Amino acid sequence: MSEQEMNIMNSTRNSQELYERACEFLPGGISRNTVFRLPYPYYAESAFGCHVKDIDGNTYLDFANNMASLIHGHAHPAVVRSVTEQLKKGTAFTMATEAEFLLAQLLCSRVEGFEKIRFVNSGTEAVMAMIKAARAYTGRPKIAKAEGAYHGTYDFAEVSQTSNPSNWGDITSPKSNPQVSGTPRGVLEDVVIFPFNDVEKTIAILDAQSDQIACVLVDPIPHRVGLVPASEEFIGALYHWTRKNGALLAFDEVVTFRVNYRGAQENYSFKPDLTALGKIIGGGFPVGAVAGLSEVMKVMDPRESKLPYPLSGTFSANPISMTAGRVTMELFDKDAVEGLNRLTRKAMVQINEVIGLAGVPASVTGAGSMFRIHLQSTPPTTYRETYQGKEINALIVRLLDHLMDKEKILMINTCSCMFSTAITQREVDRLSEALLNGFKLIKPDLEKLT
Amino acid sequence: MSEQEMNIMNSTRNSQELYERACEFLPGGISRNTVFRLPYPYYAESAFGCHVKDIDGNTYLDFANNMASLIHGHAHPAVVRSVTEQLKKGTAFTMATEAEFLLAQLLCSRVEGFEKIRFVNSGTEAVMAMIKAARAYTGRPKIAKAEGAYHGTYDFAEVSQTSNPSNWGDITSPKSNPQVSGTPRGVLEDVVIFPFNDVEKTIAILDAQSDQIACVLVDPIPHRVGLVPASEEFIGALYHWTRKNGALLAFDEVVTFRVNYRGAQENYSFKPDLTALGKIIGGGFPVGAVAGLSEVMKVMDPRESKLPYPLSGTFSANPISMTAGRVTMELFDKDAVEGLNRLTRKAMVQINEVIGLAGVPASVTGAGSMFRIHLQSTPPTTYRETYQGKEINALIVRLLDHLMDKEKILMINTCSCMFSTAITQREVDRLSEALLNGFKLIKPDLEKLT
Repeated sequence: MSEQEMNIMNSTRNSQELYERACEFLPGGISRNTVFRLPYPYYAESAFGCHVKDIDGNTYLDFANNMASLIHGHAHPAVVRSVTEQLKKGTAFTMATEAEFLLAQLLCSRVEGFEKIRFVNSGTEAVMAMIKAARAYTGRPKIAKAEGAYHGTYDFAEVSQTSNPSNWGDITSPKSNPQVSGTPRGVLEDVVIFPFNDVEKTIAILDAQSDQIACVLVDPIPHRVGLVPASEEFIGALYHWTRKNGALLAFDEVVTFRVNYRGAQENYSFKPDLTALGKIIGGGFPVGAVAGLSEVMKVMDPRESKLPYPLSGTFSANPISMTAGRVTMELFDKDAVEGLNRLTRKAMVQINEVIGLAGVPASVTGAGSMFRIHLQSTPPTTYRETYQGKEINALIVRLLDHLMDKEKILMINTCSCMFSTAITQREVDRLSEALLNGFKLIKPDLEKLT
Repeated sequence: MSEQEMNIMNSTRNSQELYERACEFLPGGISRNTVFRLPYPYYAESAFGCHVKDIDGNTYLDFANNMASLIHGHAHPAVVRSVTEQLKKGTAFTMATEAEFLLAQLLCSRVEGFEKIRFVNSGTEAVMAMIKAARAYTGRPKIAKAEGAYHGTYDFAEVSQTSNPSNWGDITSPKSNPQVSGTPRGVLEDVVIFPFNDVEKTIAILDAQSDQIACVLVDPIPHRVGLVPASEEFIGALYHWTRKNGALLAFDEVVTFRVNYRGAQENYSFKPDLTALGKIIGGGFPVGAVAGLSEVMKVMDPRESKLPYPLSGTFSANPISMTAGRVTMELFDKDAVEGLNRLTRKAMVQINEVIGLAGVPASVTGAGSMFRIHLQSTPPTTYRETYQGKEINALIVRLLDHLMDKEKILMINTCSCMFSTAITQREVDRLSEALLNGFKLIKPDLEKLT
């Protein structure tokens, strides 16, 4: 063990000990693969704003914000205050509450196409509900989704999520690869895979199954595809194809709703019929939602005589998530969105400068308050361009470990940042400086590979 | 409108007005079909212990406990205190926390077969994760489940949930009916339906597809099937069948974990390989979990070189749900379980007395802290016996409306009670008295039907 490794271990000994005990009860010692790291994950003790303290007393600058879900950082006083009040009044009832009405009103007032909204407990549940609503409305079994795009863990939504060169097949008809062993063949057959942002090939693929597709599911800025925005042309093509073929256009904005006051859909002339939401709209508490046109959302209306899509959930629309979400979204007003995006653009400029200074083949993609760093000089535009082999991925892990252990900076494991309004220019400067050090560290090995 | 209806409307005017406004943004005005009622649902303002106050100032005795999820009733001081403390420290991190370890340790120490546990956000997610884990472990696509059993809203798990005489088919091979319009045919084909508690027919059905079944999914006391406990013989038969045929035995204890210190599985000599949990283990906050044998749970271990079942979730194992759950389950110790079950048994005895006093054809089924009232003199033992036509269902609605509006008593819409430790003999007496009035009210119409 090197001296440096020894130092890291000494300064994270409580985490190491807790992890070893956790391995007795949790598979792999963790509850979420995204927080797993080798040799062991660190444990958060408390957090405020953009700072997270671990159980060994180390403090990190947080650019991950619980996988993009905390738009104001940690423990925002207004959220803490309102949730503390609600707590004393109860957290869940076998009755409705005003809190769900208030968050519904806020979100529907914000986005024209959100005529009606239904709350669930997670982004996974939101995408599942959106797909089931599309099937119930159209009576069709299939969905189409982009290769490599992450849409939660409902098995239909996760097909092809981690396709690789050994199994992805020809780009004119990407294969429906299972994400989980034992996925039923019927699931794979009911999911059509298209290449993100490639109009011609996508339309040809959709045309081949035009009468079977209930919805085209698309994340307008898909994180795992490369965090590259969909082009206006691509969204327009999907929109027109769905109009022509009796299908729905379904946006996954679980992550991307943060990028504008009205979500990523604000960037396009063509609007979705349904939108899945999650992350920031719960203010740090479990949440998901489907919003969309009344005509479609009616499939869930219990007053319908033959209810096409009955949907309940014990914790759906619980007043804690609803209250935290409302307070959070009220604070995330137009000025807040604009300020956050301005700072994030500034950060992207600085990081591009740092890439130049370090002289490494790297690039940055992103939009709004999100960006992702790629260890390739030309920014990728597709999933297959974004895809990297083992060697590059090992360098990304080394870079992230350096940032975490030496620079005390927390990023998402794809080398991405999801900003919060708690971040200021001071933190952006710290990030730039840290990345410069990190790039220099991996430069010799990176140059060997590229 | 009758004078009585006018009085009810006058005393729930705030709920009526809020509901009308909610209809503008929410399909059917609500977020959960289970809380929907005609002419409009009431809105909870606050709650403490076994009392819920609505926004018109009416106070109800709560025997529903948010669909069985609140084992200590509302706003238990110890839960409020610990969550208030955690709130100030943050609610969600891109890191692990000690809170997940502590709840994992508590639950795994409590049940021998819980060698490892994975947390998710809801019962729906728990059952989905359990089914996916079973498929990943066995490499097989199908599941088997009981006709009429509710297991959340993952489409495979909800097949046949509301089968009725027009579509359920012969009892020797109950049909796989979709719960939601547009359910893909592949989903229906991958779900095998068996008649609960019927050993001979169930084994014959399973034998016909023995090499395709990943797991037999069973709720040991399924609420919608009739809240009748599975017999030792039935669980034994499923256990031996799964051993013989390379399948897993998967219990859904999302609801039933409350019935003993070690869940409903404590009642049987034969134990499941996997168990889905939810409801009470989150202490009033969104939660779900899969627990089971290390050998099987390993499919989720990120340290495995070819990870069969990658699973993450933004809010999974968040420290609020984990903390509330741990404090709640610590308080739900052996004495608390025994006391609660004793009181519930007493209530069932009293209600049977009331049924006799009223002279109505009704009966009670249940176990532990749960029971369900049926408007039939012989307690049902199967889903098809439990199933009632429109007329009986209309009388159940009338009974529940009477309880809600006149007696100020809140029950689950299947005419079920899920007790909490906040309930005392005094509330049980009030319930008995209220039910006597309710039975007398519906008696004339009930006698016409039976």
